[in-house]
Amino acid sequence: MSDNILFYEDKYANWVRNPKQNIIQQILEAGGGNIKISFALGLPSSHLFPISTLEKSMINCLHEDSVNFQYAPPSKELKKQIVSIMKERGVFCREEQIFLTTGGQEGISLLAKLFLNQNDQVIVEKLIYPGLMMAIKQFKLDVITVNTRDSGIDINELEQHLKTGVRPKFIYIIADGHNPLAINMPFSARLKLVALAKKYKIPIIEDDPYGFLYYEKPTLPLRSINSDWVFYVSTFSKILMPSLKVGWMIVPESLIDKLNIIKEARDLNTVTLSQRVLADFLARNQLDSHLDKLRIEYKTQRDTMIGALRKYFPQNIQYKIPSNGMFIWVELKNNINTCQLLHISLKKYGIAFMPGEVFASDEKVKTINAMRLNFTYCNSEQIIEGIQKLGGLIKDLSKAA
Amino acid sequence: MSDNILFYEDKYANWVRNPKQNIIQQILEAGGGNIKISFALGLPSSHLFPISTLEKSMINCLHEDSVNFQYAPPSKELKKQIVSIMKERGVFCREEQIFLTTGGQEGISLLAKLFLNQNDQVIVEKLIYPGLMMAIKQFKLDVITVNTRDSGIDINELEQHLKTGVRPKFIYIIADGHNPLAINMPFSARLKLVALAKKYKIPIIEDDPYGFLYYEKPTLPLRSINSDWVFYVSTFSKILMPSLKVGWMIVPESLIDKLNIIKEARDLNTVTLSQRVLADFLARNQLDSHLDKLRIEYKTQRDTMIGALRKYFPQNIQYKIPSNGMFIWVELKNNINTCQLLHISLKKYGIAFMPGEVFASDEKVKTINAMRLNFTYCNSEQIIEGIQKLGGLIKDLSKAA
Repeated sequence: MSDNILFYEDKYANWVRNPKQNIIQQILEAGGGNIKISFALGLPSSHLFPISTLEKSMINCLHEDSVNFQYAPPSKELKKQIVSIMKERGVFCREEQIFLTTGGQEGISLLAKLFLNQNDQVIVEKLIYPGLMMAIKQFKLDVITVNTRDSGIDINELEQHLKTGVRPKFIYIIADGHNPLAINMPFSARLKLVALAKKYKIPIIEDDPYGFLYYEKPTLPLRSINSDWVFYVSTFSKILMPSLKVGWMIVPESLIDKLNIIKEARDLNTVTLSQRVLADFLARNQLDSHLDKLRIEYKTQRDTMIGALRKYFPQNIQYKIPSNGMFIWVELKNNINTCQLLHISLKKYGIAFMPGEVFASDEKVKTINAMRLNFTYCNSEQIIEGIQKLGGLIKDLSKAA
Repeated sequence: MSDNILFYEDKYANWVRNPKQNIIQQILEAGGGNIKISFALGLPSSHLFPISTLEKSMINCLHEDSVNFQYAPPSKELKKQIVSIMKERGVFCREEQIFLTTGGQEGISLLAKLFLNQNDQVIVEKLIYPGLMMAIKQFKLDVITVNTRDSGIDINELEQHLKTGVRPKFIYIIADGHNPLAINMPFSARLKLVALAKKYKIPIIEDDPYGFLYYEKPTLPLRSINSDWVFYVSTFSKILMPSLKVGWMIVPESLIDKLNIIKEARDLNTVTLSQRVLADFLARNQLDSHLDKLRIEYKTQRDTMIGALRKYFPQNIQYKIPSNGMFIWVELKNNINTCQLLHISLKKYGIAFMPGEVFASDEKVKTINAMRLNFTYCNSEQIIEGIQKLGGLIKDLSKAA
């Protein structure tokens, strides 16, 4: 059986002919065997999954109704539960505004597909979730990048663009637990941002996977401020189980039919069994106590990592203590290359993290010395061991430089 | 909360602005309450799911390894099982050639995305699975349609196109249990088709959801004849459970990285829990006996439907007895409009089927009097009742015409 790459190379769609292999995928693949301590991905703790309740829900779904085994329309019961969950985030919506997705990435990707033509403009921060960039790179877009301040996206810079005639199809925002910068946008900044979107009639895609994971007082999401111009995307992957692969969007009702057309062409429907299991689980009223547990444990893990950074990393690093989400963003001294550090730490210790360059939407942004550290996946012992070993490697690299 | 469709209408991507609402989605949605007897969709029987083994597999996955709850790379164990399953279809492949998907539709859609640019050519039959047309309609393609004969796609017509310089990015084929025409392509025709693909270097997308559901002697799939030019797509939805939402492709290894890039942008990965449950289920060696049961039961249901058609439908209809798959294609007398018939049968009896026009890839193909009937989902009593009632309606319409 021959398998000659040259057979097909001239047949691929243009945009996919010479793409860079994605770093996240590489790390996922490598994770199969070699990674011992991973600060790389935005994964929940494996020890906190509510297994016994999930087991009850699964068995219930297997024996309850054979519709649970078939293709089926999106679960109304799950939508109803999501309406109820969202109230706790200060978002009041109707079942008819909810669109269930094959995880959060599908939500982002469907909205991108719904709005984007070739040559359209979009606005994103210079450091941003790479899944957004993956979702839009098939379009030849005019991507306008803006800086991020301590209060999130630089609103003055954004307004300048809009004033000078930039008309993006959307603005992509993670207001809570910014990925990768771990910023919580203050409510006053959220109000200004939404006012701009409304004034210039630009939709905001509010990507909110981490909104329920707050370790201080929670902030109301953008969607709570405006329901016409904020399209909300979230997922059960961070708060329950990634492997169920179910997310949701809250969008104006007029978008639902259009989104259905795109979703059908891609995967017909969202995994029915997971929808039913989630609806059953949520009906057991266990989510609140589960989230309380996550917030307590993750806050402890965050503090453990902060303590370890203080103890084992050089004194000249920069970071902020995140009030929500799963990450700490660390900037090392200028002479440290975090891609080089990752290469060494994987090889020597099997320790993984995300180097800053993964998140750059703009080639000009300086990320060579930055890293994103996840604090939710590893337990405290692993966090201390991993940070200690990384700290040692950083000090070695500093001396060598 | 206002929800004004005019807000967004000018912002949508061009191709999605005025699409027709899809009939499958409408029937799925309507199925929630009003449909009593459905011959519409390609669903398996709800009474034959191997629940007790699946329950064991689920509980095992919940307690075995916490990686089952996380994002994870595609399951090597499942790929290994697929290699083994495929041997029974006469296909010899390696794990490295297998790509796991969020169901069969995602497989088709990923391949379309991998190969198609605007203005490309593709070749499809005039009557074809509408999911293929959904997957390609975002591209402004030059869609060349060819007729279907009793032996499947008209190979002479196809060759004429290729001889006159048509160079499609791919040819889409369902060789076993053709959807909607329920044809089984003879092996001699498969050999000719694959020889053409090889000669002109045109990939064939072999969509094979029904290949394991044969009621006479099975025929070797196209992929067994050639591994370079046949890209094979299948799914567990028809042979195990649609609600697990896992399918697979067998492609040349050089395509895997490219497909990964597209899949990541869309949904990151395939539902991990379903992959693990399937791998566990298959390791229990229950699939063969399950397939044997399906073949016996579905053959009986097919024969029940054929008997009912003979008894209750007018004598002037045309159909063939399918040797595999899930459907019977029926052509009524010219003066019967099957869309009108569906409207009446849904309203009067809650009986659903697919009118022929759903499958037309070419406006000029005559489908007004055709219908696709599924015989796997309903039990024998429902089949007899449904066909009897439909037959009555057809006779009424004939008299009125």
